[in-house]
Amino acid sequence: MAAGTLTNAALIAVDWGTSRLRARLVDGNGAILAEAASDEGIGAISGGHEQVIERLTADWPAVPMLMAGMVGSRQGWREVAYVPCPATIAEISRATVPFTMSDGQRKAAIVPGVMLRDPKRDGDVMRGEETQIAGVIEREPAFDGTAILPGTHSKWVRIENGTILDFQSYLTGELFQLLSRQSFLRHSVAENAGELAAAPGFALGVERTAGDDLPFLAALFSVRVRYLLDNADKSDNLAYLSGLVIGGEIAAARAGGQLRPGAAIRVVGAQSLAQAYMKALALIGLAADAPDGDQLALAGLLHIAHAIGFLPKGHA
Amino acid sequence: MAAGTLTNAALIAVDWGTSRLRARLVDGNGAILAEAASDEGIGAISGGHEQVIERLTADWPAVPMLMAGMVGSRQGWREVAYVPCPATIAEISRATVPFTMSDGQRKAAIVPGVMLRDPKRDGDVMRGEETQIAGVIEREPAFDGTAILPGTHSKWVRIENGTILDFQSYLTGELFQLLSRQSFLRHSVAENAGELAAAPGFALGVERTAGDDLPFLAALFSVRVRYLLDNADKSDNLAYLSGLVIGGEIAAARAGGQLRPGAAIRVVGAQSLAQAYMKALALIGLAADAPDGDQLALAGLLHIAHAIGFLPKGHA
Repeated sequence: MAAGTLTNAALIAVDWGTSRLRARLVDGNGAILAEAASDEGIGAISGGHEQVIERLTADWPAVPMLMAGMVGSRQGWREVAYVPCPATIAEISRATVPFTMSDGQRKAAIVPGVMLRDPKRDGDVMRGEETQIAGVIEREPAFDGTAILPGTHSKWVRIENGTILDFQSYLTGELFQLLSRQSFLRHSVAENAGELAAAPGFALGVERTAGDDLPFLAALFSVRVRYLLDNADKSDNLAYLSGLVIGGEIAAARAGGQLRPGAAIRVVGAQSLAQAYMKALALIGLAADAPDGDQLALAGLLHIAHAIGFLPKGHA
Repeated sequence: MAAGTLTNAALIAVDWGTSRLRARLVDGNGAILAEAASDEGIGAISGGHEQVIERLTADWPAVPMLMAGMVGSRQGWREVAYVPCPATIAEISRATVPFTMSDGQRKAAIVPGVMLRDPKRDGDVMRGEETQIAGVIEREPAFDGTAILPGTHSKWVRIENGTILDFQSYLTGELFQLLSRQSFLRHSVAENAGELAAAPGFALGVERTAGDDLPFLAALFSVRVRYLLDNADKSDNLAYLSGLVIGGEIAAARAGGQLRPGAAIRVVGAQSLAQAYMKALALIGLAADAPDGDQLALAGLLHIAHAIGFLPKGHA
């Protein structure tokens, strides 16, 4: 990469989660100049955070660095205390912890996670997703509704007046992997299948747990029964299990108040997974938009970078 | 064992499940003369069923053999068709498949499983548990209520007039193992702990999913939160996860109609697990009895043995 193209570099925006590290070099207007990523997630390394990120971005100018995700956890670079819910993006920005890197000059900062206390279920935590939510609010300042961030640990986040009011995490992705690969249901489903959400089994699964409110735990054994008594195709049955899990998540969010009747919905995540959620929501009559999760994460980091003075004010 | 004590031997009663093989030699009155067991479950062997059971019972007289469990599945000795639900014990007895062992003389028979069809969830199957239910009905012919058979795959069975009306399987035991040992929640719970049901966490878990109807999927992340924000003791947190799973099963059975208001309840299973369910039911105000599962399985096999002429009529 020719150094000449990087002279406008103003910030390195970093998503540093449990399993992935991703850095983007941007100019003062937030335009991306360069990108780099690795598998050196917080769960994969033990210390040496500064060396890891410097190695990844060695060819880039030494501009300030703003980071979000598990990098701010106890196992991360610096532990950054959670901001309590309800939390505005301004509060999250103010609680971002700045520090100087070991050269004594270069500026860095870590965005805090958000914490919820709720006596009905102890509470909840997020680290990294708050930055995507900041992106949602940056793009739609008047957004009033629910943002769904599907994944290994899905989050449903209720937003109003630029504030995170309430959120709930689900082990959806992890549960799907455990059930389809490790439980006795693995004998009844394919190891892999193409676009799960396109299979008829997916729709049936969603309709049962989200449409008919069949309890998730009461629905699971039917994966076995469909194979044993109905000779269900194993690929379709994997899609059915996926539908049961995602439908179960939707039903739980509705029961828990994270999905209110008539609320606007944004599904924020990787495209194929976001499309599966869009399909599931449509099956029970709910419309949603799916803005690009990567772009929102960057928009959120840029918003916070402006707020803390890492980027000049007046740009977005 | 002195052969002299076995001269009254009349029947070998066999539970042959996925992971365990258990044989009991009984006299014409059903009194146990000898017992033997091994890990040669149906899932652990590939064929050679006759050799396996003959080796286990080599010292015993060659009396007729009545078997129940996965021995009647496609992977078993002979596949025995399921009896459809509603099913009486008399119907199950009539559908028991007799055959002659390879010496051309010795009689054997396999008890069928029971199958349920239900458009709301495809249906359900059991193999082996029907014999414990036959034991419940043998002991309490007028029993009207629900029998709970906790375990790796728990079954809730609604019984009326000596008939299995409806039943539902739950992956409870397997789900608990997967979540506590393989999911990311493993970092928040102890690997093992003593009597889980005695810990305060167990009661809290049951109260949330069965008492307050917090959806199981919405409750799971709280295992992490209790550890992260509340410094929950890992042993108590394992008990909490156990309470969430068992409570979730109870809530699902209530929603699915397997647990009707005011119904009599029998918890049939190994004592420590049965006691945990008794405790969970008591926490939400439900009384239950816990007859010994092993004795009921034998009582059921003896009942069927009488019905098919493997034991003389008139004894029980």
